[in-house]
Amino acid sequence: MTRPEPVQRTVFRCFVPVTLRWNDVDIQGHVNNSVPFQLFDTAVSHWQIENQLFHSVEQPICVVARQSCNFFAEIGMMDKVTVGLALERIGSSSITYLLGLFVNDAQTSAVQGEFVHVVVDNVTRKPAPISDEARRVLQTIAAKRD
Amino acid sequence: MTRPEPVQRTVFRCFVPVTLRWNDVDIQGHVNNSVPFQLFDTAVSHWQIENQLFHSVEQPICVVARQSCNFFAEIGMMDKVTVGLALERIGSSSITYLLGLFVNDAQTSAVQGEFVHVVVDNVTRKPAPISDEARRVLQTIAAKRD
Amino acid sequence: MTRPEPVQRTVFRCFVPVTLRWNDVDIQGHVNNSVPFQLFDTAVSHWQIENQLFHSVEQPICVVARQSCNFFAEIGMMDKVTVGLALERIGSSSITYLLGLFVNDAQTSAVQGEFVHVVVDNVTRKPAPISDEARRVLQTIAAKRD
Amino acid sequence: MTRPEPVQRTVFRCFVPVTLRWNDVDIQGHVNNSVPFQLFDTAVSHWQIENQLFHSVEQPICVVARQSCNFFAEIGMMDKVTVGLALERIGSSSITYLLGLFVNDAQTSAVQGEFVHVVVDNVTRKPAPISDEARRVLQTIAAKRD
Repeated sequence: MTRPEPVQRTVFRCFVPVTLRWNDVDIQGHVNNSVPFQLFDTAVSHWQIENQLFHSVEQPICVVARQSCNFFAEIGMMDKVTVGLALERIGSSSITYLLGLFVNDAQTSAVQGEFVHVVVDNVTRKPAPISDEARRVLQTIAAKRD
Repeated sequence: MTRPEPVQRTVFRCFVPVTLRWNDVDIQGHVNNSVPFQLFDTAVSHWQIENQLFHSVEQPICVVARQSCNFFAEIGMMDKVTVGLALERIGSSSITYLLGLFVNDAQTSAVQGEFVHVVVDNVTRKPAPISDEARRVLQTIAAKRD
Repeated sequence: MTRPEPVQRTVFRCFVPVTLRWNDVDIQGHVNNSVPFQLFDTAVSHWQIENQLFHSVEQPICVVARQSCNFFAEIGMMDKVTVGLALERIGSSSITYLLGLFVNDAQTSAVQGEFVHVVVDNVTRKPAPISDEARRVLQTIAAKRD
Repeated sequence: MTRPEPVQRTVFRCFVPVTLRWNDVDIQGHVNNSVPFQLFDTAVSHWQIENQLFHSVEQPICVVARQSCNFFAEIGMMDKVTVGLALERIGSSSITYLLGLFVNDAQTSAVQGEFVHVVVDNVTRKPAPISDEARRVLQTIAAKRD
């Protein structure tokens, strides 16, 4: 396993500020490792809802197929955290998001992760195609790499 | 405010074992104060689902109107916890549950609480009457006080 | 049980904005009933830390002895929530906070609660006196009632 | 990205039963994607504490450096879940655990993940060597692959 480098803020296209909670911090005095995925999920859902993707009755929904993250720095309860969100890849019915937690004014992420959504039919839960309109909106947050 | 006495196990009619999680413990080294309500909610829902109350499409649902708890002892991550559940009162469309968290072999609760459910229509969210059948089932867990 | 009236914003002296998370919402489509206590705890801790009360090594700490809340309205994931915080009472070693969750521009709380902290010695966990300086700071957020 | 196959129960050496909570289930009616890491963390900590590794004052502690999981099946609130735990690799100061969530009597995991702990000094948080004794205990749960 080669350890990845933390991502720069400039790679991301969408930023969602989030607040931490007293109970996010565990006995080791830092934000517990299960919390980043709560924040990633929140950022993705916020962005989808604001862009009217995947959250209305007639649309397919997204379920998580795979997620991962690397920790580069500990986060404390009084830190200001912003979630950076970008599109990494789109397949026929899957979407891979790149996510980063940025603490205070740091330019590199404290936690960096990936989140693979599979688009499925709301009732059958079978994979559903991603519409052209959804692809167009998703491309507006494509990761900016050199 | 007079501080209540912790409840004895013998008052309860239904016991739901629950497991604690590493992230339930906060920086003070004990189970965080928001956790008991997760466990109370779980015990009530388990009992309702097993007794086929309030969780099928054609039935009204329950929403929490009021909840409270008193802490008598700290709980640690490796403690074995059982939730005691009993019926305290039924109104025309409200149900008050008595709840206790029992740690290991203790006969008195470490945390004791109340939980008031209002039965509401699934769609309108307006109060709905509690059926005679639901009342009969609820009475089977009436708190046993002398 | 008489149902209390929801509190007005004007009663509170301190406001802490918080963000909701996707996983705060349960299968009923609203913020789960265990979440308000996570937010109350967070607001109290933020205020204490910013006012240098009860969070340094040489100070006593606060543990929750009792908490309760009433729900007046359902909260959704996209709602903007602010926690209102005020001091309700101080005893020899206990502090009762009044707390309210305010959604968007509402002037009355969607959820209103109380939170009783007992000040205890960090090591012995026995009740400790509240210092005059702590009392003075706590009085700056005394609830404003007519 | 090639999608891995779900792991068989026979690969694991240690099993920790856990209980689900009402609030684990999100609006999509299944256990939210942030929950598996709460359960993984709990299983690893339980096993470490029972084996007296990494949780006493004179020992180094473990912090999470990387975690990931794949979802193969949805989990419901009434499902019985057991966490399977095995050792995948040990480095000079890192430990990679293999984890699986097994639902009811299923022989393959519903969720499979990895969890990389770095052993660090409790005070400096710098990587610390893993003792021979800790290595010996860790090898007792080495993944059983053919």
